[in-house]
Amino acid sequence: MGHTIGEIARALGAEAAGDLSLVIERAAEPAAAGPEALALAMDPKYADGIAKGRARAALLWAGADWQGLGLQAAVFAPRGRLAMAGLTRLMDGGPEIAVGVHPLSVIDESAVIGAGAAIGPFVTIGRGVVIGARARIASHVSVAEGAVIGADALLCQGVRIGARVRIGDRFIAQPGAVVGSDGFSFVTPEKSGVEEIRETLGERTEIRAQSWTRIHSLGAVSIGDDVELGANVCIDRGTIRDTVIGSGSKLDNLVHIGHNVQIGRDCLLCGQVGIAGSARIGDRVVMAGQCGVNDNIFVGDDVIAGGATKIFTNAPAGRVLLGYPAVKMETHVELQKALRRLPRLARRVEELEKTVTERLPDAG
Amino acid sequence: MGHTIGEIARALGAEAAGDLSLVIERAAEPAAAGPEALALAMDPKYADGIAKGRARAALLWAGADWQGLGLQAAVFAPRGRLAMAGLTRLMDGGPEIAVGVHPLSVIDESAVIGAGAAIGPFVTIGRGVVIGARARIASHVSVAEGAVIGADALLCQGVRIGARVRIGDRFIAQPGAVVGSDGFSFVTPEKSGVEEIRETLGERTEIRAQSWTRIHSLGAVSIGDDVELGANVCIDRGTIRDTVIGSGSKLDNLVHIGHNVQIGRDCLLCGQVGIAGSARIGDRVVMAGQCGVNDNIFVGDDVIAGGATKIFTNAPAGRVLLGYPAVKMETHVELQKALRRLPRLARRVEELEKTVTERLPDAG
Amino acid sequence: MGHTIGEIARALGAEAAGDLSLVIERAAEPAAAGPEALALAMDPKYADGIAKGRARAALLWAGADWQGLGLQAAVFAPRGRLAMAGLTRLMDGGPEIAVGVHPLSVIDESAVIGAGAAIGPFVTIGRGVVIGARARIASHVSVAEGAVIGADALLCQGVRIGARVRIGDRFIAQPGAVVGSDGFSFVTPEKSGVEEIRETLGERTEIRAQSWTRIHSLGAVSIGDDVELGANVCIDRGTIRDTVIGSGSKLDNLVHIGHNVQIGRDCLLCGQVGIAGSARIGDRVVMAGQCGVNDNIFVGDDVIAGGATKIFTNAPAGRVLLGYPAVKMETHVELQKALRRLPRLARRVEELEKTVTERLPDAG
Repeated sequence: MGHTIGEIARALGAEAAGDLSLVIERAAEPAAAGPEALALAMDPKYADGIAKGRARAALLWAGADWQGLGLQAAVFAPRGRLAMAGLTRLMDGGPEIAVGVHPLSVIDESAVIGAGAAIGPFVTIGRGVVIGARARIASHVSVAEGAVIGADALLCQGVRIGARVRIGDRFIAQPGAVVGSDGFSFVTPEKSGVEEIRETLGERTEIRAQSWTRIHSLGAVSIGDDVELGANVCIDRGTIRDTVIGSGSKLDNLVHIGHNVQIGRDCLLCGQVGIAGSARIGDRVVMAGQCGVNDNIFVGDDVIAGGATKIFTNAPAGRVLLGYPAVKMETHVELQKALRRLPRLARRVEELEKTVTERLPDAG
Repeated sequence: MGHTIGEIARALGAEAAGDLSLVIERAAEPAAAGPEALALAMDPKYADGIAKGRARAALLWAGADWQGLGLQAAVFAPRGRLAMAGLTRLMDGGPEIAVGVHPLSVIDESAVIGAGAAIGPFVTIGRGVVIGARARIASHVSVAEGAVIGADALLCQGVRIGARVRIGDRFIAQPGAVVGSDGFSFVTPEKSGVEEIRETLGERTEIRAQSWTRIHSLGAVSIGDDVELGANVCIDRGTIRDTVIGSGSKLDNLVHIGHNVQIGRDCLLCGQVGIAGSARIGDRVVMAGQCGVNDNIFVGDDVIAGGATKIFTNAPAGRVLLGYPAVKMETHVELQKALRRLPRLARRVEELEKTVTERLPDAG
Repeated sequence: MGHTIGEIARALGAEAAGDLSLVIERAAEPAAAGPEALALAMDPKYADGIAKGRARAALLWAGADWQGLGLQAAVFAPRGRLAMAGLTRLMDGGPEIAVGVHPLSVIDESAVIGAGAAIGPFVTIGRGVVIGARARIASHVSVAEGAVIGADALLCQGVRIGARVRIGDRFIAQPGAVVGSDGFSFVTPEKSGVEEIRETLGERTEIRAQSWTRIHSLGAVSIGDDVELGANVCIDRGTIRDTVIGSGSKLDNLVHIGHNVQIGRDCLLCGQVGIAGSARIGDRVVMAGQCGVNDNIFVGDDVIAGGATKIFTNAPAGRVLLGYPAVKMETHVELQKALRRLPRLARRVEELEKTVTERLPDAG
């Protein structure tokens, strides 16, 4: 799967110089690059690395002196990480799945499989499923009855798509991702302790025995275009209406999405984020790893939450959040600073008390 | 799978009015309901939605004027969410798995499969396994040697049941749940850094090289009746005795249960909760999402912990907890309030110091 | 799989007394031990339990009066938990997988399978894979093209090994572990809101629409010897270079390792720990459950982090950390103590203000 420097430059919409016919087999960090690799040095700080490696060509910062670096060819990346997107897309062969349906798969005869699809071994496709064109479905995947998946999907090994789930085009799911597990929704015949706590903010009048009766999830999951799910992600189905993931949103490994949750467009939810049932998340929301969102609350468009932020109450659009419980990032920084000084503050108060007690007329 | 209004009312033990022979195909939110759907409007605030939709029948609050709402029939739900439990149970057809054993499964000949069981493709059932009557086992499930599972189980796609695990009746496991992974238990030949820290609360006399020797898990997992596990849940086996999950307890997606943990009856552990090894959790304990429990501690009956509460020390029965580290909910609220005022408090102390320094006789 | 007391003592390198030919079938807690079991009583506090059970032999603390305890034989463990390691290793038969390749597996003809390997049903092994001697591969495992796994591996049910992943000897992966999922790396054509926040620490000049372009992962995962992964662990591949897990490191259930992360040797990462992309973790680092590490930072050798510690900045070698954000453990304890006293401190300041206002000459 070699590519010439000229092909790479065209794929990136970038300028190139030198021997455009030079063939590149892979990308590499500058010091580790062999003569068959394109050294990635989009910043002058990586120039030294080129000398240490054996690359003949490199992806360089704009204006770099490629000949001075001893190279035979160069591609110039105006915005480094964006060039990385194009380059890695070009060079990623993706998983090897033969086009067609592996004989050791179980495809219901009513299922419709799009043209050019590749389905690996030990895959199950249920009754009435529709899979779009050019789908790549790796081994051990299950797609349950009535699910519909758009064109150009990539379902990695062991992905689980539940019944009646609907997914748009260009969907990617890493191994073990689960879409359409039942919601975690239970009810007690009497008012439960949790309901009482929510009403009283912590007071409990009595503690009763209680057992949980299941509310089944009749809804499904509805996923837009260009959505990606990390490994072992879990997305629950809705109770009556669907759980929704908007187009362009990306979920990292081990993210948990509760039942009835609505996620907007172009969100980024990093590793181990958890969104509790019926929460609504706006568009372009970014949550760093291990963030949590309370059930039934609203997080506005363009909110950004730092690592492990725990959002308990509605968050207005555009806010930058941090902390447990979540507060504005600048407030969090101020509070942490004050907290760090608190032991000293306590000593100063003690000192003041002593001074006042000792010195104030008839205060002793 | 239609149901008449009369059947639905009988199943819920609820009263009905109007055309009891009207057939309902599914449940829907009022505004989205077509003529074949039962509109769910258990609260007067949903009355408007009925006018927007096309439902001919609805599940209504007690005393609702169903004819005034333009309906042909109605079921009256005394406690809304409990009625939802009955209704969704009635309407959930569950996963489609043909009764019998799929030919592309590998069932050890010594295994005993209960009457009426349905086992999908690519399932493995090990030596000496016992599966109860009417079990539904979806594709890609593995049940290892010696495991025993009660009647009416539902194992969704890709569930893993480890060797010698024992599970009661009416067990439900969502896709990817793992019961019986090995415990995370390691020992160093010399006292480890962690052991020293625990003894000294942070002081380290020296840092030594150390490597970890594995303690294998010889115990299994013992699970009561009516237990449900979310997607990608992990429950480790015990070292010598079994890890135990009491009857009626429900675990949400991505919950982690360490080795030797004992969970009582009717607990609710929400998404991404983690219980470290050898912790003991009482009955009816409820933990919101992302809570954590330290190893080897005890959480009493009826404890309720808010989102992302991290419990480091024993918690007495009935306590309502919040925070990192966990404190009583009311204490947490008070401390957070005080913390929010801390920067202002610091300024007030500074002011006081200035005042005292400047004005107090011979204090300058 | 019985063992004589003599065999057990030899395996542990421990002393034994009494009838060394007595055959033991399993290990048990003292009170639960039958006559076929070895009672585990490595501490005098367990002596009472022996009387309650029916064990004829026990693993005892050094110097125990085994005859006074009514036993026929005893093994003496100098360091209890280390003896547990040896004993449980001896007694753990491991999963039952027949040696050879199950006919319902799909093994690429170019794959090289080591001598004595056991491969269960529904396993897929891709093109050019190399699996070491005596590997045990349970059902439903997938090993993608070009992966290399050393000798004596144990891959439990449903483990996913991605393309070109390289793993050393004695690797253990619990069910559902994923090695080699794609990294979570996206770029926007313009500077993203997140990039701006990082530069300005919370200030946003404007909010723009943005959609995410994927950076594919061309790197793989490189894992040393003696590494163990818990159930449903996720390890992402690197973007260009490999993600690295050093020899001897152990990862518990549901741990998340982002792309490009470097983990040193002999680390212990407990349940649900998350390490964000490009973080570097030193040797012998221990993180308790639910810890989080920010992307692109460094955690030095021998760092120990308590439960749910969230590490946002570089941590020097040997430090003991706790809290969100992480601080030195002793600082965390001091700050929490001060915080608990804060409401009282606020009242004392109020009192002081009143005193000063009322009593200080012309301060009123």
